Formats: sequence, C-alpha cells, structure tokens
Amino acid sequence: MRVAIQGERGAFSHQAALAALGQEIELVTARDFDALFATLAAGAADRALVPVENTLTGSIHQNYDRLRDSPFHVVGEQRLRIEQCLIGLTGSSLEHLRRVRSHPVALGQCLGFFREHPGIEAVATADTAGAVREIVELGDPSEGALASRLAAPLHGAALLSTGVEDDPENYTRFLLLGRDPAPREGADKTSLVVVLENVPGALYRAMGAFALRGIDLTKLESRPLRGRPWEYAFYLDARGDPDGEVAEALEELRREAREVRVLGSYRERA
Amino acid sequence: MRVAIQGERGAFSHQAALAALGQEIELVTARDFDALFATLAAGAADRALVPVENTLTGSIHQNYDRLRDSPFHVVGEQRLRIEQCLIGLTGSSLEHLRRVRSHPVALGQCLGFFREHPGIEAVATADTAGAVREIVELGDPSEGALASRLAAPLHGAALLSTGVEDDPENYTRFLLLGRDPAPREGADKTSLVVVLENVPGALYRAMGAFALRGIDLTKLESRPLRGRPWEYAFYLDARGDPDGEVAEALEELRREAREVRVLGSYRERA
Repeated sequence: MRVAIQGERGAFSHQAALAALGQEIELVTARDFDALFATLAAGAADRALVPVENTLTGSIHQNYDRLRDSPFHVVGEQRLRIEQCLIGLTGSSLEHLRRVRSHPVALGQCLGFFREHPGIEAVATADTAGAVREIVELGDPSEGALASRLAAPLHGAALLSTGVEDDPENYTRFLLLGRDPAPREGADKTSLVVVLENVPGALYRAMGAFALRGIDLTKLESRPLRGRPWEYAFYLDARGDPDGEVAEALEELRREAREVRVLGSYRERA
Repeated sequence: MRVAIQGERGAFSHQAALAALGQEIELVTARDFDALFATLAAGAADRALVPVENTLTGSIHQNYDRLRDSPFHVVGEQRLRIEQCLIGLTGSSLEHLRRVRSHPVALGQCLGFFREHPGIEAVATADTAGAVREIVELGDPSEGALASRLAAPLHGAALLSTGVEDDPENYTRFLLLGRDPAPREGADKTSLVVVLENVPGALYRAMGAFALRGIDLTKLESRPLRGRPWEYAFYLDARGDPDGEVAEALEELRREAREVRVLGSYRERA
C-alpha cells in the first residue's frame, strides 16, 4: 500500500503511518498539505495521512477545511505521542553539540533542553526529519537535530537522547484518507460536518440527535462559513454503530440541517 | 482613555479602537500580543483591544488562551470590516507601482489584484500599517502598500484605491479588555469559558442550561486542555440578561461543570 505523508522520511507522520498500517507500506512524501491532497487525488498514493489535532496546540483547521473541500473519505485514524529526540552524527555526543536544528514548533517544545544547555544554539529549519538529513550532509559533529526516534536510523544518524520535549502529554491525531469509503465491518466512529440553520438552539437540537440516543460526541469543532459572516460549519466525531444509532441520528439531523456530510465511518484507535 | 493595540498606528486594530471608543482615545501600540497583554497588566493602558475571530480564517485561538490565562475582563466588543486599500506616495498612481508591500495575510486577501497587475511584485512585511510607513520612508513612487484606509493619512501617504480585497465578506471581531468588569447596565452578552466533566453528553447538558431558557449561544469554540489529552475547554458567548436568565443558566452550569469562568458581560455590538 502506497501511503502519502507531508514531510520527509522519518517525519512524525511517517511514524504514524507505520503505526497505522505496518512496516510493509510504501511511503510517498509530499512537500506541503496541498501537495499531499493532490497526491491522493492523482492516484499516486492509496492513502493519505493527515494530522488534524495536537493536544498542546489544538486543531489544524486548514486540514479540516481541505478535507471538507475534497472528495475523500476518512477510513481510519491514528494517535501518536510526539517524542522529540536529540540526534547527532554517529560518534558525536551531547558535549560536542553547538547547534541543534529543527522545525520551530519542535524547538518550542524543547525550551527546557535549551535552557539547560545555554551553549547550544537553536536553529530553525523547515522540517524535523529534514534537519536530520541536513546534519548528516554537513558531516559536522557539533551539529544536532530534534526529530522523531525513527529519523535517526533512516538518515544514518545516532540517537543521542530521547524524550527531550518539555511536556510528554503531547499527542497528535491523524486521519487516514482514501478515495473510497472504508469497509463498514468493525466501524465504530463516524466523522461528519454539518451546517445548521442560523436560528437559536439549532446546535443544541443537533447535538440532541446524538446525546438522546446515548451516542458520545468525542469532537466538536466550529469553522467559519465563507461568504456567511458569523455562521459556522461544525465538525463532529460520533462514537457508535454507523448502521445503527448513528444512522438514526444522521437521519434526524438531515431533516433539520442545511447540510450534513459524512466524512467517513471507521474503526476508532486509542 | 488609553487604548492598547497590537501593531502600528493605522493598523486595523487602530480602526477598530476608534470605532469602539471614539476619536478621543490615546493610542498605545504593542509589538505583539504578549506585549499587548503586558501593557494592560502594567497599567500603561486602560483598555486592550484583541482580535479573536475573522470570518475568513476563523478564531485566533492563541488570544482566547491568553485571555483565559489573564485576570482581565471583557468589557465590550467591536466588529470591523477588513477593507484592504492600495496606498502610495502622494503624487504616485497605480501605473507607477512596481512593488506592493503588506503583511502576508493581507497579500493573500488580494490575489485578484496581483493577478490583474502582473507587473507588480508582492513583498511581505511584518505589518500592514508598517508597510505604509516603510514606503513613505523609502520615498520611491514605484512602492505601494496594502493596509487600512486609516493608514494613508496617518503616515502622510495617498489612498490610490479602496476595496482591493478579493472577498468583501471579511470581518474581524475584537474584544475590548479591561482590568475591571464593565458596568452591568445595558449588558446583554456574556463570554465565558467552561471545563466539563469528561462524560458522554456533558456538553449537550451544558448547552441545555442555555437553550432551554431561550438563550442564544452565538459562539462555541473548543480548545485543548494542557496535560489532559483529548479533553477541552469550551468558549461560549451567550445573549441575554446577565442578571436574569444568563445568571440562572450559569448557576445550573456551575453545579455540573468542573470549571466555569465568566470572562465578562458587556453590550453587544453588531
């Protein structure tokens, strides 16, 4: 199976792809998220893995918007703990490092490390795994990088230290997208986007379609509607049988809502 | 009254401050949003005006987080249509322009203009009003800027064209913050943040406290809780009498929620 990710080999998205689909996947890398969606559209990959939420920084709204604008289906999900690792050249060690490169977000997650090592300069790069590739190309033992555990062996570098991040409660949730819906068997979670009539209480009644059937909503996210100031689309994740109580809730919702689009039903992964 | 904004004189925040509080205000400018909150905390301003939502790009979540972490009160709101204007040196005109500077977000809102004028290069700057100051300092009639209508006279430049943005349905909502609560007289809107028990249906019941009293919720935004992966705080705006039905709803909410914090009650402005 060909799986497209944003970023280079060894990116956190690569780790998530392996966790979701196993070691046998063929990785397809995309420069940015628009290119990632284009890769799936062109048939150059069978799946695309898209980060949609991080427990420290919140939702990645642009990817929800891209998903809504696309014809793709959510066929699975994957959560990944974001563990930042200090990576250097083989034979180097923490004492040799003078500069450590990574994506600005990763640098910002490791402020404690830089505070403890005032002699090490933080250098921003476009990509975490790309920073590892760069230090290997430079061949300078005073250069280090912060990236996933996977990035070190993939780029022929050494893992100098693990768990360097300030806050270990750092998880990213990815959605796995395909051109066709997932098989219904075993599906217990449904992602959808709804646009409600702009009347008081509309969201409360929409949520009642789920709550009064005992369906847990694990996600509720609002996004502005283009061309309709101060109106919103809501992204919901509902836990339950997509052919049972969730189907009933959707039927009720469709009678009240301006738009209901099921993005996909799939098996939940903790 | 001293009003702090993020950005330079002539920024959209400056326009919003004038619309909210009139021409007599004394403007205090802050480099970034952390500095803006610090200005209010230090007593160097009586009010701070903070953008929290744009109708094209969505909520500015970091400002919700800063507000929640601050001791300040929401004392008012202001909506502003974001109209991008083409600004040049006095005596210059569209035909002279070879470069147009602005903040990347403003440039991205005027793609049609750059498509229609392929001979004009878009140049990214830190700030819209700052771009106007820059072109005046350069004194080169081939340099233009995209910024608010207000920025031209304030920096001694000329308005060459108005309404240059691609999508006129572009509004930003600002919250006006103070160190003390607003007077209750005339207040008809309350902003709050709630943290609910992590049980199915908790949000539905919380919304019922409002909906079943006929209170319209004009805003619902979720933000991740630090240290509690996949749990959320919810920001709500409720329309109604803060000493009447909204007070009753809050009383009910407090019995069920882990945390309820009223950010402020104030008079709604369309």
